[in-house]
Amino acid sequence: MRTLTTLCLLLMMTATACADPLPSWREGATKDAILDWVNSITDSENEDFIPVRDRVAVFDNDGTSWCERPGFASAEFQASLIGSLAAEGKIDGEAMPFKAWIADDRDALHEYGMGKSYVEMNAAFAGMPVFAYRDSARAWLERERHSRYGVRHTELYYLGMLELQALLAQHDFQVWIVTGAAQGFVRSYTEEVLGIPPGHVIGSWTQPVYHEVDGQGVLVRGDVQNYNGHENKPAAIQTRIGKQPVFAAGNSNNDQPMMRWAITGPYRSLGLWIHHDDEDREYAYDRGTNKIEDLVKENPAAFEVSIKDDWVRVFACDKP
Amino acid sequence: MRTLTTLCLLLMMTATACADPLPSWREGATKDAILDWVNSITDSENEDFIPVRDRVAVFDNDGTSWCERPGFASAEFQASLIGSLAAEGKIDGEAMPFKAWIADDRDALHEYGMGKSYVEMNAAFAGMPVFAYRDSARAWLERERHSRYGVRHTELYYLGMLELQALLAQHDFQVWIVTGAAQGFVRSYTEEVLGIPPGHVIGSWTQPVYHEVDGQGVLVRGDVQNYNGHENKPAAIQTRIGKQPVFAAGNSNNDQPMMRWAITGPYRSLGLWIHHDDEDREYAYDRGTNKIEDLVKENPAAFEVSIKDDWVRVFACDKP
Repeated sequence: MRTLTTLCLLLMMTATACADPLPSWREGATKDAILDWVNSITDSENEDFIPVRDRVAVFDNDGTSWCERPGFASAEFQASLIGSLAAEGKIDGEAMPFKAWIADDRDALHEYGMGKSYVEMNAAFAGMPVFAYRDSARAWLERERHSRYGVRHTELYYLGMLELQALLAQHDFQVWIVTGAAQGFVRSYTEEVLGIPPGHVIGSWTQPVYHEVDGQGVLVRGDVQNYNGHENKPAAIQTRIGKQPVFAAGNSNNDQPMMRWAITGPYRSLGLWIHHDDEDREYAYDRGTNKIEDLVKENPAAFEVSIKDDWVRVFACDKP
Repeated sequence: MRTLTTLCLLLMMTATACADPLPSWREGATKDAILDWVNSITDSENEDFIPVRDRVAVFDNDGTSWCERPGFASAEFQASLIGSLAAEGKIDGEAMPFKAWIADDRDALHEYGMGKSYVEMNAAFAGMPVFAYRDSARAWLERERHSRYGVRHTELYYLGMLELQALLAQHDFQVWIVTGAAQGFVRSYTEEVLGIPPGHVIGSWTQPVYHEVDGQGVLVRGDVQNYNGHENKPAAIQTRIGKQPVFAAGNSNNDQPMMRWAITGPYRSLGLWIHHDDEDREYAYDRGTNKIEDLVKENPAAFEVSIKDDWVRVFACDKP
């Protein structure tokens, strides 16, 4: 039995080994570093070998796995949901922070306090059945188009990162999304779009509340928002995954603690900082990146990924 | 390629299809119900077919998957850790609730308040590196023997439940442990003992705190305990798994909301209530089971598992 299984696996591996697993990555030092790391840690003869069960990879979402400009899709969706609740008379759309969310008035939100604005927005969804929230998110994603590219937000995952996630999954990695965005929004589409089940999405979350209604179990959203950013990312990784990752990708200081946690464990690890330096094909911005940039300079396990230089194509909608 | 894969899978399935997957279960209505459900929901031609990605099974731990008498192993471990901290002068072992934990004085703990006793015990572990806690748990499990059976606690998983977990895993289920016990304790051994990774263990938990020390990421235990029992179980299942389970096993009212949530979803589902009615081979007790018993009577998807009548063998250390 075991011989048959081994034979089958060998045949399948041989058939797929020749193709470039990262066709959207330009040949160069970064691509070499990724492939060298993957080959080393998955080779049981190599001193850097990592057993399958410890192959945990964490990807930030906004700005790391998909486009986060001009606005965060999760916040835009939730603002639209606030608009619906106001239209239905369930909340006062003239009161802050709802008024500013509906008008997409970022200055007013910053003045009111961004943290508080998110907390109060989420509290307004309390009592909503968790599946109704999920279905609203799906409907929004189906309906909305990105203001610059004219495609669905879910079509703006970076090809290079999709290829990397697929490569890691092929090598039996657990691939997790660890995001500061609303968990319920992100997990509404990841299984369809990325093949990542909702249980592998860690985001800012609200513990739902359980009721029994006519013999049926019902879960509705709770009113306490738990923010999953900065130091909370490695903390949530421990709570939810229970293993120190050996790979992390991020794009801002928000991801620096998670990346440091991933690349300072016992195994040979890899960190990737996605640098937004391509105004022509995507966006160029550097605000809030100094700490993750310093980590790349300081730790040889971390690399800068220049969107401009390292990616042949950014999005599927680009001309190849 | 696909044909080759299919051929290999068929050969492997044929070679394993003939053996009884539940040899520790006595032939009868309960075993028939389990096998009929598994066969129906995994048969793509059957109207009750459940796609692989929605095959989520949740098992309570204490009293459902392993023996919980005479005391909860997780609490006994944590009490021993409190004893160590007191011996090191880090906490006052004469103060409540520590004194009662160390003396295993359950009356004193009940008088002080069980919830409060657990919360204050967990707060005493704040600042301990998460891996040090895990290693203490592993050392305790290696060292301790069960007072009645004389074996390690991890040898007291019920054979019938191990076979059932294996059967579900063979059918591409995600198998999760959802327990009121300390998450860090249970996940310290599940990967070795059950093949269940730490990320598939949901228990009472404490969000750790992240620090950076000399360029390294460090996680230590936090001081807020989140209890994972009763209504919190289905809530945590949604937060952590993000899918309504189609299978749940439990043994007490603590598991009733989780089981109701699992068996009142859109798919044909199965709930098992493990009834402790076998004083000779295990323990007989019925306190705190009326609600889960009522659910079994009320909902045809739920079944009683009588340890006495349904299991040929209870533990691996039983004579066959």
